[in-house]
Amino acid sequence: MMEQNRPNGTLRHLLTLEGMPKTQIEALLTRARKFVRPIGEAPVHTHSLAGITVANLFTEPSTRTRVSFELAAKRLGADVVNLEVQLSSRVKGESMLDTIYTLEACHVDVFVIRDAETGVHELVASHVKPHASVLSAGEAHVAHPTQGLLDALTILQAKDRFDGLKVAIVGDVRHSRVARSAWHALTTLGVAEIRIVAPRALMPPAGEFAGCERFNSLDTGITGVDVIMMLRIQKERMETAAIPDADRYFQKFGLSAERLAKAKPDAIVMHPQPMNRGIEIASDVADGPQSVIKDQVRNGVAVRMAVLEAVIEGRGP
Amino acid sequence: MMEQNRPNGTLRHLLTLEGMPKTQIEALLTRARKFVRPIGEAPVHTHSLAGITVANLFTEPSTRTRVSFELAAKRLGADVVNLEVQLSSRVKGESMLDTIYTLEACHVDVFVIRDAETGVHELVASHVKPHASVLSAGEAHVAHPTQGLLDALTILQAKDRFDGLKVAIVGDVRHSRVARSAWHALTTLGVAEIRIVAPRALMPPAGEFAGCERFNSLDTGITGVDVIMMLRIQKERMETAAIPDADRYFQKFGLSAERLAKAKPDAIVMHPQPMNRGIEIASDVADGPQSVIKDQVRNGVAVRMAVLEAVIEGRGP
Amino acid sequence: MMEQNRPNGTLRHLLTLEGMPKTQIEALLTRARKFVRPIGEAPVHTHSLAGITVANLFTEPSTRTRVSFELAAKRLGADVVNLEVQLSSRVKGESMLDTIYTLEACHVDVFVIRDAETGVHELVASHVKPHASVLSAGEAHVAHPTQGLLDALTILQAKDRFDGLKVAIVGDVRHSRVARSAWHALTTLGVAEIRIVAPRALMPPAGEFAGCERFNSLDTGITGVDVIMMLRIQKERMETAAIPDADRYFQKFGLSAERLAKAKPDAIVMHPQPMNRGIEIASDVADGPQSVIKDQVRNGVAVRMAVLEAVIEGRGP
Repeated sequence: MMEQNRPNGTLRHLLTLEGMPKTQIEALLTRARKFVRPIGEAPVHTHSLAGITVANLFTEPSTRTRVSFELAAKRLGADVVNLEVQLSSRVKGESMLDTIYTLEACHVDVFVIRDAETGVHELVASHVKPHASVLSAGEAHVAHPTQGLLDALTILQAKDRFDGLKVAIVGDVRHSRVARSAWHALTTLGVAEIRIVAPRALMPPAGEFAGCERFNSLDTGITGVDVIMMLRIQKERMETAAIPDADRYFQKFGLSAERLAKAKPDAIVMHPQPMNRGIEIASDVADGPQSVIKDQVRNGVAVRMAVLEAVIEGRGP
Repeated sequence: MMEQNRPNGTLRHLLTLEGMPKTQIEALLTRARKFVRPIGEAPVHTHSLAGITVANLFTEPSTRTRVSFELAAKRLGADVVNLEVQLSSRVKGESMLDTIYTLEACHVDVFVIRDAETGVHELVASHVKPHASVLSAGEAHVAHPTQGLLDALTILQAKDRFDGLKVAIVGDVRHSRVARSAWHALTTLGVAEIRIVAPRALMPPAGEFAGCERFNSLDTGITGVDVIMMLRIQKERMETAAIPDADRYFQKFGLSAERLAKAKPDAIVMHPQPMNRGIEIASDVADGPQSVIKDQVRNGVAVRMAVLEAVIEGRGP
Repeated sequence: MMEQNRPNGTLRHLLTLEGMPKTQIEALLTRARKFVRPIGEAPVHTHSLAGITVANLFTEPSTRTRVSFELAAKRLGADVVNLEVQLSSRVKGESMLDTIYTLEACHVDVFVIRDAETGVHELVASHVKPHASVLSAGEAHVAHPTQGLLDALTILQAKDRFDGLKVAIVGDVRHSRVARSAWHALTTLGVAEIRIVAPRALMPPAGEFAGCERFNSLDTGITGVDVIMMLRIQKERMETAAIPDADRYFQKFGLSAERLAKAKPDAIVMHPQPMNRGIEIASDVADGPQSVIKDQVRNGVAVRMAVLEAVIEGRGP
C-alpha cells in the first residue's frame, strides 16, 4: 500500500480508504458537508480550483461517475479535460505512463482515473511529479474510495452517528469495489456490526472483510439492521452463483418491501447505481421512503468537491 | 400532450411547438433576436445562466445540434456536460429514468435530449423535479421544436411578416420532425398557405398537416411561393418511394435554379442540414442569393440561447 | 501553397511552416516563451481569447494533441467545443464544407483540424469567412506545424541558437509530418546541417528534404550531432522496410545509450510521442538526462497558446 499523504500530512492521492485514519476520513466528510445542497437548490460554486487542471481518464465516456467528477471540478473553477483511454499496467506499462507524463507536461494537476485493472492507479501515483494527485474513480473490484466516502456521508446524514449501527452489505460482495471501500470507511468510522449477505459463490475470499458476519440468507442477514447497502448484480455472476435467472435471484436476494420490514423500521436503503430494478431491488423499495439512493448521488458531487479541494489545498500556498 | 408551462405561465419544458400559444412563440422569437449577431461578429456572452448546469444527452457525440446547444449554454455562462446515451422508454424505462435522476441529483438544471424514439422526452419531463427543464433537440419523426423556432425566425427576418406568406415544405415530409415543428410554428404564427410537396409514399398520413394542400409535383408545388423549405432525403427512403437513385430523385424533387424560378422572385430557400447537395438541392441554389441556410444555423444558436434563458428565468428568483 | 497571412501581414491560418518567413517563426517562438512554465508550476491563464470560440475537429477523440490545443484555448479564456469528425475533401467535399459553414454560423472563430488526408485543411481555409482561422493539428504525412514550432522552441531552449547546429532526424522520415515540419522550421531558422537517417525504404522521395545528407546507418548518421529527433515507427512500416520485427528494428535504428554516445556529449534527444520504447528508442535514453521529450510536450501547450493568441490578435480591434 503506497503512502497517500504528503510529508506534511495532507492528502495527496486518494486510491483507497484502507488504512486511512479516522480523523482524515472525518475531515473529508466535514468538508463535503459544506458542499451539500438539497436537490433543486443551486449547487455551490467556488474559485478554489481556479488555475487548476483536472483530467478525467475513463475507459468509457459516459459514466455517471465521470459526470460527477467533471461537475465537481468545474464548480470549483478548474479546467477539465476528458479522455477516453484504456490504461494497462502490464505489457504496456511504460506507454501508459507516457500518456500520464504527457498530460503532466500539459500542466494537469489532478488525474481522475477509472480502470478495470488493479494496480494502474498506484503505478501512476508513484510516478507523477510531487505537485500532481491521482484520484481513483474505481479500480477493478478493489477500491472506489469516493463511493465509500459518499456512502459514509449518506449514513451519517441519516443516522447522525456510526457507533452502534448495524449495516448489511448485500449481493455480489466478492466482485464489488463499492463493498470494499464501504467496509474500509465504515470499519474505521466505528460501525459496530457489518454483515455480508451473498450467495455462497459471491462471498469474498475468507481472508477479506475480517470481522464481518456472513449470511447466505437475505432474510436473516438484514434482520434488525439500520442500513442496507444493496449491490448491483451482473448477469454473468448469477451463473457463477448457479442462480438460473433474474426472477430467481430476486426471490433469493432481491430487496422487496416485505423483506425490508425485517430491518429496523427506520432502516435506510442504499444502492451505488445503476440499479437492476426487479432483480436486486424492487422498484417500490428503490423509490420508497426508506431509500436514500438519490442522496448518495447528490453527496457524490459534494464528496468529490471535497476531495479535489483537499488535495489542492494541501499542496500549500 | 403534457403541459409545458409552469403554473405561473412561464415556459418550463420545450418538447413541441404543437399547441404553443402565438404570444409565447412570438416572445421566444423576440428574445432570440437579441442574441442574433451577423456571422463574423462576436457572439453575445452573458451571465444569465451562471451557476446553472446543462446536460446534453445525445445518442451521437458529434451532431451539429449538440454543438449549437453547447455553445448557446456556454455563452450564457452555464456549466455544460455532454453524455452519449441511448435512452429508451420501453423495456428499460426505469433504468433510463435512473440516469436522469442521477444527473438531477448532480444538480443538472436543464436536460437537452435527442432521441430516435418517441415519448422519451415526455417521460423524462413528467418525472424530473419542479426546478428542472427538458428541452427536445429532436424526437423521432415527431418534433424538433428549436428547429421550428429557428425556421420561423429566419422567415421573419427575411419577410418581416407571417400573414399572407405561402410556404412549401418539400421532400420526405412523412418522416420529418423538422416539417412537423415548422408546420406547428408557422400555422400558429399565421402563415396563410402551407403546401406539402412529396412523393406519394413520403406524404404524411392523411390526418396530419391539416389544411395543407398536397402536391406530388415539385414544379406545381412551389409555384408562386415565398418560402421553400427543403428536407433531407435518406437513401433508404428513396426505395420506399420507388425512386431508383439519387439522380432520379433530383430530377423529380431536387431544387434546381431552373425550378426555383417558379417560386416568387424573392422567395427564400431553406434547409435544416445536413444537405445532400445534388440530390434534394442543387449546389448553386444552396449557395445562391436566395438561400438563407446559413442564417438558419446562426439563428439556431440564438434560439437556443433564448429558450435556455427563458426556462431558467421563468423559475423566478 | 495558399497565403497564410492576412493582407495586414498578420498570421491568419497555420497550415504549414513551409515558406514562413524567419521573422514570423521567431515572433511565434518569442510569444510562446511567455507561456512556458516549468512542469509543476501553475500554467499561464489570460483572457486574451475571451468571447472567442475554438472548435477542435479530430478524427479520434483522445489524442494528446487535442488535449494540448483544448487546454491552450481554455487557458486563454476561449469557449471550446470538441467534435469527432471524419473530414474528406474528395467525393464529399461540399458536405465537409457544410459542416464547417455550420460551425462558422455558430460563431466558431478558430478551426483546429487534424486529418489523415492531404488538402482538407487548405480547402477549409480557402472557404471560411475572413474572420475565421484554420490551424492544422496534423495533415497526413505533410505537415504538423505546431509540432515543428515546439520542436524548434525546445532546441532553442536547450542550445540557445540555431546556427551551426547539426540535427539528425531518425526513422520513418518518408511518412512523417513531424519530420517535414521540423525540417521547414529548422531550415528557415538557420540550422546548418540536417541529416536524414532512415532505412532505404523509408527515405523520403529524392526531391524532398533538399540539402539534407541521407544516412542508412544510425551510427554514422548521429555521429557528432547536437540534436537527435527520433520518429515513431509503425509496425506495418517495418515490413515496408523489410525489417522482420521490432527487435531487429531496434538493433538497426533504435537509439540506445551506447549509440547516443556517438553524438556530441551535450546532444539532446527528442521524440514527438507516443514512443515505442524498446523499438525506436531505449527507455533509459527516453528517460535519461539528455532527453528533452517532456519539454517538448510542455512547449506544445505554450506554442499553441501563442498561435491562438497571434491569429486572434492579428484580426485587429
